[in-house]
Amino acid sequence: MIVAMMEKATEEEIQMVVARMVEIGFNVHRTTGARQTVLAGVGQPASFDVQDFQIMAGVADAHRITSPYKLAGRGFAPQGTQIKFTNGVTVGGKEVVVMAGPCSVESREQIFTAAKQVVAGGAKFLRGGAFKPRSSPYSFQGMGLDGLRLLREVGDATGLLIVSEVMEISQIELMLPYVDCLQVGARNMQNFNLLRELGQARKPVLLKRGIAATIEELLLSAEYILSGGNYDVMLCERGIRTFETYTRNTMDISAIPVLKHLTHLPVLGDPSHGTGRRDMVPAMARASVAAGCDGLLMEVHPNPDKAVSDGAQSLFPQQFEQLMKELRIIATAVDRTLS
Amino acid sequence: MIVAMMEKATEEEIQMVVARMVEIGFNVHRTTGARQTVLAGVGQPASFDVQDFQIMAGVADAHRITSPYKLAGRGFAPQGTQIKFTNGVTVGGKEVVVMAGPCSVESREQIFTAAKQVVAGGAKFLRGGAFKPRSSPYSFQGMGLDGLRLLREVGDATGLLIVSEVMEISQIELMLPYVDCLQVGARNMQNFNLLRELGQARKPVLLKRGIAATIEELLLSAEYILSGGNYDVMLCERGIRTFETYTRNTMDISAIPVLKHLTHLPVLGDPSHGTGRRDMVPAMARASVAAGCDGLLMEVHPNPDKAVSDGAQSLFPQQFEQLMKELRIIATAVDRTLS
Amino acid sequence: MIVAMMEKATEEEIQMVVARMVEIGFNVHRTTGARQTVLAGVGQPASFDVQDFQIMAGVADAHRITSPYKLAGRGFAPQGTQIKFTNGVTVGGKEVVVMAGPCSVESREQIFTAAKQVVAGGAKFLRGGAFKPRSSPYSFQGMGLDGLRLLREVGDATGLLIVSEVMEISQIELMLPYVDCLQVGARNMQNFNLLRELGQARKPVLLKRGIAATIEELLLSAEYILSGGNYDVMLCERGIRTFETYTRNTMDISAIPVLKHLTHLPVLGDPSHGTGRRDMVPAMARASVAAGCDGLLMEVHPNPDKAVSDGAQSLFPQQFEQLMKELRIIATAVDRTLS
Amino acid sequence: MIVAMMEKATEEEIQMVVARMVEIGFNVHRTTGARQTVLAGVGQPASFDVQDFQIMAGVADAHRITSPYKLAGRGFAPQGTQIKFTNGVTVGGKEVVVMAGPCSVESREQIFTAAKQVVAGGAKFLRGGAFKPRSSPYSFQGMGLDGLRLLREVGDATGLLIVSEVMEISQIELMLPYVDCLQVGARNMQNFNLLRELGQARKPVLLKRGIAATIEELLLSAEYILSGGNYDVMLCERGIRTFETYTRNTMDISAIPVLKHLTHLPVLGDPSHGTGRRDMVPAMARASVAAGCDGLLMEVHPNPDKAVSDGAQSLFPQQFEQLMKELRIIATAVDRTLS
Repeated sequence: MIVAMMEKATEEEIQMVVARMVEIGFNVHRTTGARQTVLAGVGQPASFDVQDFQIMAGVADAHRITSPYKLAGRGFAPQGTQIKFTNGVTVGGKEVVVMAGPCSVESREQIFTAAKQVVAGGAKFLRGGAFKPRSSPYSFQGMGLDGLRLLREVGDATGLLIVSEVMEISQIELMLPYVDCLQVGARNMQNFNLLRELGQARKPVLLKRGIAATIEELLLSAEYILSGGNYDVMLCERGIRTFETYTRNTMDISAIPVLKHLTHLPVLGDPSHGTGRRDMVPAMARASVAAGCDGLLMEVHPNPDKAVSDGAQSLFPQQFEQLMKELRIIATAVDRTLS
Repeated sequence: MIVAMMEKATEEEIQMVVARMVEIGFNVHRTTGARQTVLAGVGQPASFDVQDFQIMAGVADAHRITSPYKLAGRGFAPQGTQIKFTNGVTVGGKEVVVMAGPCSVESREQIFTAAKQVVAGGAKFLRGGAFKPRSSPYSFQGMGLDGLRLLREVGDATGLLIVSEVMEISQIELMLPYVDCLQVGARNMQNFNLLRELGQARKPVLLKRGIAATIEELLLSAEYILSGGNYDVMLCERGIRTFETYTRNTMDISAIPVLKHLTHLPVLGDPSHGTGRRDMVPAMARASVAAGCDGLLMEVHPNPDKAVSDGAQSLFPQQFEQLMKELRIIATAVDRTLS
Repeated sequence: MIVAMMEKATEEEIQMVVARMVEIGFNVHRTTGARQTVLAGVGQPASFDVQDFQIMAGVADAHRITSPYKLAGRGFAPQGTQIKFTNGVTVGGKEVVVMAGPCSVESREQIFTAAKQVVAGGAKFLRGGAFKPRSSPYSFQGMGLDGLRLLREVGDATGLLIVSEVMEISQIELMLPYVDCLQVGARNMQNFNLLRELGQARKPVLLKRGIAATIEELLLSAEYILSGGNYDVMLCERGIRTFETYTRNTMDISAIPVLKHLTHLPVLGDPSHGTGRRDMVPAMARASVAAGCDGLLMEVHPNPDKAVSDGAQSLFPQQFEQLMKELRIIATAVDRTLS
Repeated sequence: MIVAMMEKATEEEIQMVVARMVEIGFNVHRTTGARQTVLAGVGQPASFDVQDFQIMAGVADAHRITSPYKLAGRGFAPQGTQIKFTNGVTVGGKEVVVMAGPCSVESREQIFTAAKQVVAGGAKFLRGGAFKPRSSPYSFQGMGLDGLRLLREVGDATGLLIVSEVMEISQIELMLPYVDCLQVGARNMQNFNLLRELGQARKPVLLKRGIAATIEELLLSAEYILSGGNYDVMLCERGIRTFETYTRNTMDISAIPVLKHLTHLPVLGDPSHGTGRRDMVPAMARASVAAGCDGLLMEVHPNPDKAVSDGAQSLFPQQFEQLMKELRIIATAVDRTLS
């Protein structure tokens, strides 16, 4: 941590800051300039709040100089993490991996049709919600266990890996037999108890960025899972909340190269939630691949107009197929493959 | 719902929109202008997604015309909800009620000292966390059940009501014997399973606004609790995330009068989380009361410099006492009292 | 405009709204539902403020149903506007056009070297500032007229078209002989007097989106220029301000497909200002082309480490050359060319 | 400036950073920790861009430690600036000064009626626009010089000081004889040429915060005016753009105490633009005074329903009178007066 004192700070104020830095475990190096004193805290206190220093008397500003995450940082695994799945699919390698399917599992027929369509297009994972977080208490809330069973069945039948959202601790045990990857939704990105439990799970986790989460906060949330011993974590950009309302969220495409720079974990893009509008999904899927993502998560529905949830952002199967062709070309421009 | 068609929409496109509106339960009134057709959907379909219509061919725009919450709307209880507590304190009446105390329960001595200080200043509730959501896995996570026991003990000793945060469903049962009010933190505002369970609880709930939640989303989250049969819900503005970083969050003071206009539920302000800086808390506490809040939630610690969490935003006891004097004057300007 | 009345609105309140709608020039169609009355205003009043209605007694909500821009709307030129320049270059056609060069003109040698480098890479325009808007009064403010002369000279020598920023009305006349395209910076997007004057100019205008401007506001600003009779306007996404601070701005890539949907004007992306970091520029340039932009505006400097302004976001010439190769591949995926 | 190197930074990378810091004028103090090297730059280079360092090889992070503004900083005039006007009114003293009036000057009768009403309520300044920045080219654009003449006339007749918006350099000379204070609107907060010219003016300037401007940027814009020799600058918070759309902007009340902490310049609040809704203006005016502002800028119109601009946010004269009574009580709570 660096603490810059005000130009008019008294020696007493400086000493109080030094004392507090030492107290929490820093070695302090002092630079006394003609106009201003700067204190550099070196070392790694277990945990501290930089704001405690920002409000001390005589302090002009205080900054962290080490990132508060360790295991998630690029330096921990400079070559990048590759997550290998049972059927040979790897996320974080040279291949851009596509996960596609409906927002919710609605029926046996719907999910089998969807699976056939996405596998034909080239997807490696089937996505589909069994438990649905809905902002209105009067909306459809998911098929639950029956949905999970259908997902497993169709996964086994088609060879698709299954990814589905876990909404609370009690669902983890329940879901593990049925899914290949547990997804944490944007609203749960800072549900720390859930993250801690997932650190104990022995299945990969797909962690979505919260709509108001900074990139640093996303990495701190990943750190919760990693610090529990589960190293198979994928991150996913899915749109942040801004003042622009034409799209449901503003997909922060730049988070993709930034995350690739800051962390060794694989990074996905979700253009369906990132835009909320089917007509904008292909452009943003292409942009994600062009920006260097390791995979995509997209909503595709056999009949979007009849979808019980998120129909407006679900692609028609033909759109998905056309999009996959475009993505294959773009992948070559960034030295990647897409099957 | 209103759907405005594009000027060049074809009759076929118009008919497809009409058909879909009818299908989900609307009666449709059509206005054909010289340049543009407008379709008004009248009635109350159980649940629908306005974005499904925004992306239909020929549609220029689609808007809801009824708010998606019903029980939380002002019209449901135009005179305003008053929540009466066992010791005679009422939130939502003429009195502005102050809830104060440390971020976390740290020890018997700390919480008893804090309680004595806040009751002396005029607080009616003691706040204090037993379970703490922390963005870093390496930070203090709360005293748990021991903290709850201390809270109950000090509440009984001082006559202060107890409010403390519930972080997940499994804690509800555990907390009920110890607290007078269950607080839902900003990060859980859209933890819908938790909200649903709280709808079954027979204790009042203090629901904080998420840092990226719109006012409408806050009211929809309240609706989850109300629709379960628990009508004793208080809302709390505690800062939203914006581009400004000088303060930890930007406290949206205007949300106070807006909420008073839109809902019958009591509205509190939390200037501690709203600013993150002790030196800004008094100004924002005063602003909250001046803007018409029904109560305040504030962090006060016997020794903020030694606080295990949120010390930077905790008031010194003397600051709290001085602030309460100022608030009493402001309360009279808005025809309220503050004891 | 649509006005939805509250469920409890009185007939008198409804009549007051109707009267005001008629007064400003609407024909009013009334839909009386079992629970709620809806008023549809049909026609085109010259100008009105929807908020005047939102605050009337008994009104639940009021929405515009026609966009407030006319000439900028897609419907005005459904096939898309193509801007043809003297040397045969067209913006808005099949070719993705690249504009590149240093932030500021610094010297004869610098701008000639830069021009040679960007023309070698495949750029069609040279960008370079002669007048610089700087947030600090103590920063370099540009070479002014001398810079313009150098731009014209190097443009004539290399065949590159010249684009440079105009900061105020008095500079328009001065700049016209030297540039092929006048750029309006993000901070001037709502300098309406300047826009109006540019509507009288007979040179194309490149209008950048303000950092807090909605897409609708960008189109309204374009409308100012178009309504003056200058139809050669290009729009440019260059990053908006959000809570994320890792990048200087958050480049809203989705604005590219949204603008292509809403307007006939060509749409550019500026990944240099969009990210503020050289290491993120290539990813965002690729993403822009993948998302369907008609051109790119990028900062390239012969020696970024010595640049007097914006060095951190300027590409090295070799980076630019490599990037152009990648962009050529991506262009084919979206059925475009890039020379 | 402080530069924190990555843990794995090489000595060569460290030396390159040191060399560049020295080159731009810093003395460099190096702290070599067990894990990480930190470089503190001491001194005051004329101007530099911290991002140039953030992207250098081996750099983890770089921060400024001195604020880039000097004259606007609290330290420059710790006792606070008081701006004295000809008629004895002082802004920045103990009295909270109210500026009120219509958005636009519309007619002789309208402005004389408005002036009588606001003076009766206790206002000391009359506000009113002669030149209007309008986001649509089809809206009313102001009365121009005729409006200025009416303002002067009514000011002389009532003893009210006149404040009106200047939109571009060419208007400064024109306005000076007619107004007592030149207002710079939010859209021009970073019109640096205009600010520089106002630094030469010999009349006070009221500078409004841009809707996407940080507090630091507002102070840098003030610095432009101050550095030209005009020290009579007032700042005004008038709402920032956030994701919340219920109010037109989100009024950042906390900017008031933050600015009082950071600068010696007087700070005003504008609850009319801050909310955009008449029904929220009184609450936010009260909140501004409770938060410690030195003055208020408010729209009051004799007949808001007939206002040519901003009617929805203009108070009725009776509302203004009632509000002023409430504000007088609140002023006493913060040891201020309000006449």
